[in-house]
Amino acid sequence: MSKSPVDPVALTADLVRCPSITPVEGGALVLLESVLSAAGFTCTRVDRGGVSNLFARWGHKGANRSFGFNGHVDVVPLGNPEDWTVDPFGAEIKDGFLWGRGSTDMKSGVAAFVAAAIDFVQTTPPDGAVILAITGDEEGDALDGTTALLNWMAAEGEAMTDCLVGEPTCPNIMGEAMKIGRRGSMNVFFTVTGVQGHSAYPSLYVNPMPAMARLMDRLASHKLDDGSDHFDPSSLAIVTIDTGNPATNVVPAQCRATVNIRFNDHHTSAELIQWMQTEVDAAAETFDVTIDMKVKVSGESFVTPPGPLSDLIGAAVEAETGRRPELSTSGGTSDARFVKLHCPVVEFGLVGKTMHQVDERVSVAQIQQLKSIYSRILADYFA
Amino acid sequence: MSKSPVDPVALTADLVRCPSITPVEGGALVLLESVLSAAGFTCTRVDRGGVSNLFARWGHKGANRSFGFNGHVDVVPLGNPEDWTVDPFGAEIKDGFLWGRGSTDMKSGVAAFVAAAIDFVQTTPPDGAVILAITGDEEGDALDGTTALLNWMAAEGEAMTDCLVGEPTCPNIMGEAMKIGRRGSMNVFFTVTGVQGHSAYPSLYVNPMPAMARLMDRLASHKLDDGSDHFDPSSLAIVTIDTGNPATNVVPAQCRATVNIRFNDHHTSAELIQWMQTEVDAAAETFDVTIDMKVKVSGESFVTPPGPLSDLIGAAVEAETGRRPELSTSGGTSDARFVKLHCPVVEFGLVGKTMHQVDERVSVAQIQQLKSIYSRILADYFA
Ligand SMILES: [Zn+2]
Ligand SMILES: [Zn+2]
Repeated sequence: MSKSPVDPVALTADLVRCPSITPVEGGALVLLESVLSAAGFTCTRVDRGGVSNLFARWGHKGANRSFGFNGHVDVVPLGNPEDWTVDPFGAEIKDGFLWGRGSTDMKSGVAAFVAAAIDFVQTTPPDGAVILAITGDEEGDALDGTTALLNWMAAEGEAMTDCLVGEPTCPNIMGEAMKIGRRGSMNVFFTVTGVQGHSAYPSLYVNPMPAMARLMDRLASHKLDDGSDHFDPSSLAIVTIDTGNPATNVVPAQCRATVNIRFNDHHTSAELIQWMQTEVDAAAETFDVTIDMKVKVSGESFVTPPGPLSDLIGAAVEAETGRRPELSTSGGTSDARFVKLHCPVVEFGLVGKTMHQVDERVSVAQIQQLKSIYSRILADYFA
Repeated sequence: MSKSPVDPVALTADLVRCPSITPVEGGALVLLESVLSAAGFTCTRVDRGGVSNLFARWGHKGANRSFGFNGHVDVVPLGNPEDWTVDPFGAEIKDGFLWGRGSTDMKSGVAAFVAAAIDFVQTTPPDGAVILAITGDEEGDALDGTTALLNWMAAEGEAMTDCLVGEPTCPNIMGEAMKIGRRGSMNVFFTVTGVQGHSAYPSLYVNPMPAMARLMDRLASHKLDDGSDHFDPSSLAIVTIDTGNPATNVVPAQCRATVNIRFNDHHTSAELIQWMQTEVDAAAETFDVTIDMKVKVSGESFVTPPGPLSDLIGAAVEAETGRRPELSTSGGTSDARFVKLHCPVVEFGLVGKTMHQVDERVSVAQIQQLKSIYSRILADYFA
């Protein structure tokens, strides 16, 4: 068992050099498994449906108190490789930054919590367990990723008392925000079908577009709520309405629209679907058309209300950065929505400005700072 | 001066053999000029902007009473030539039909009125003038066609007391309908512009689509009228709404829509534009977006109210076919809208079923019947 500390910057660089574009493992989890095993962690690969996941525990299964970290080593595609000014898998360090795909989202986060966890258990072995649940499928469908890993853990009796997801959470400045929840998100696809015909003969066509216009107006002008204790107001956005008819003398049979809803804890997807179905039925009857509605729910809203976990993390961030992070619930979805089904969860990580972009890069100093924050969180948690 | 009668079927065939796809003259007007000159008509080519037109008069300029025919010899393109089962410019006669592009729309109509006019002036020289105003640009922009010809006539003191346009007017059966007017038609192009943004951050985008939905709902649900003495109700059809945004996490900046309005004599295009501008302004203000509206007016509504001209033509049609034609104002636009600015005008022609289609064809018997109807109209008019 090695006792040498792990450098989170060097580990980030090693991870960036693994070309782990979802769902390819690319050597990233193999590397982490070897590093963690060497440090005394019990490691289990939980691979499902072509996706690789890694479970690592220091301490005993069923420990009274266990702190978990969750993160992912898969990365989004490069975009146009020609647009990169560096080797996207080169992990070059220049101008104070480490450059490469996944450097921000979130190989630096994983490296920081791996380094912090190893450092912590080796220097101050806690009365409890430290668990790392690392997936190779966060950027994809996520079906075989964190969800599969959590299901396996539940079946094996592996539990986290609390969990921290290491995604980037700071918009601009290190330490300014943590996330205690996320709004729910769903996409709704509407197809209105009438009867095609020549625009000069209204009795021979049933135009789908007046029904679509009325339905979209009804949905978009309905105020969902004024926000809640921890959330901004829910929002409904029509993202596209399309017909694709080039002929002004023809009324076409179909029109399609897509609506995206970001909803807070005043709503469930089921209740929103029911409301929209009522509006769909009304429009279909009024305009004598058929309206098909297909729904894809990305996630329900969830929140870990401010309490011991967010207090502890907020204090640790403030101690290391001098900045008390705001408790945010903004942004898109993350794997925290799956973790929340099992235990309290908070997200904290570094500045995510260049994530998913060309020339993605992370401040080297921020990686070190993040490792220090994670170390302090572990120390305070088990103090 | 020839005294031999002209066979309208042979003349139709000769015209079909002239490949006069708009704006190409293709020999059609040259042929008619030679036939009409030989029969004692004074002919003038009135060519404008690459378009050929032919003016022909029998009798004196400034005659007390002159009957005019209007028609066109240009034809629409072939579509896919491979789809034709005959030579589109072959004028083949089989199964009782004469086949070819323009055989129905409207070289047969022109041949019938040319043959009728020659026959009439040679057998019963009237106390008045017979005028033929034939254009080579009806299917195109029509700017240099009948309008230019009528303007030239006005400048020259050449006037028609009444005019018959020889377009096909019968939907299925010879003699069933004549047109005493047409609804106006206009296309209106709307572009709503907001501000693009990520759909998770409503404060950072201005979605153009709620404004578009409201505007379209307002326009489509507004009843324009209940019809008028000679017209069906006006109708407004949204023909397309398009955004073209494939990303559900992005709210795009623009949305476009096209509306087609067919309006009767309760409205002018100017009044309708004013109404729509009011709705545009209201939606733009409510939703804080920019809305651009572009209008293309194809024609105002017009009508020659039932009276001596429609009575005379109706009676002639009934005498020849046994069928009293209904007085219709349906269908798209025609050059009658230009003629109406100068004199009363009615449209009557044969069955137009295959016009603008592949394998366009005309019943040989109907050409003869149409020529007889036109002959009777001339005889009754000058009786
Ligand atoms: Zn991520
Ligand atoms: Zn025509």
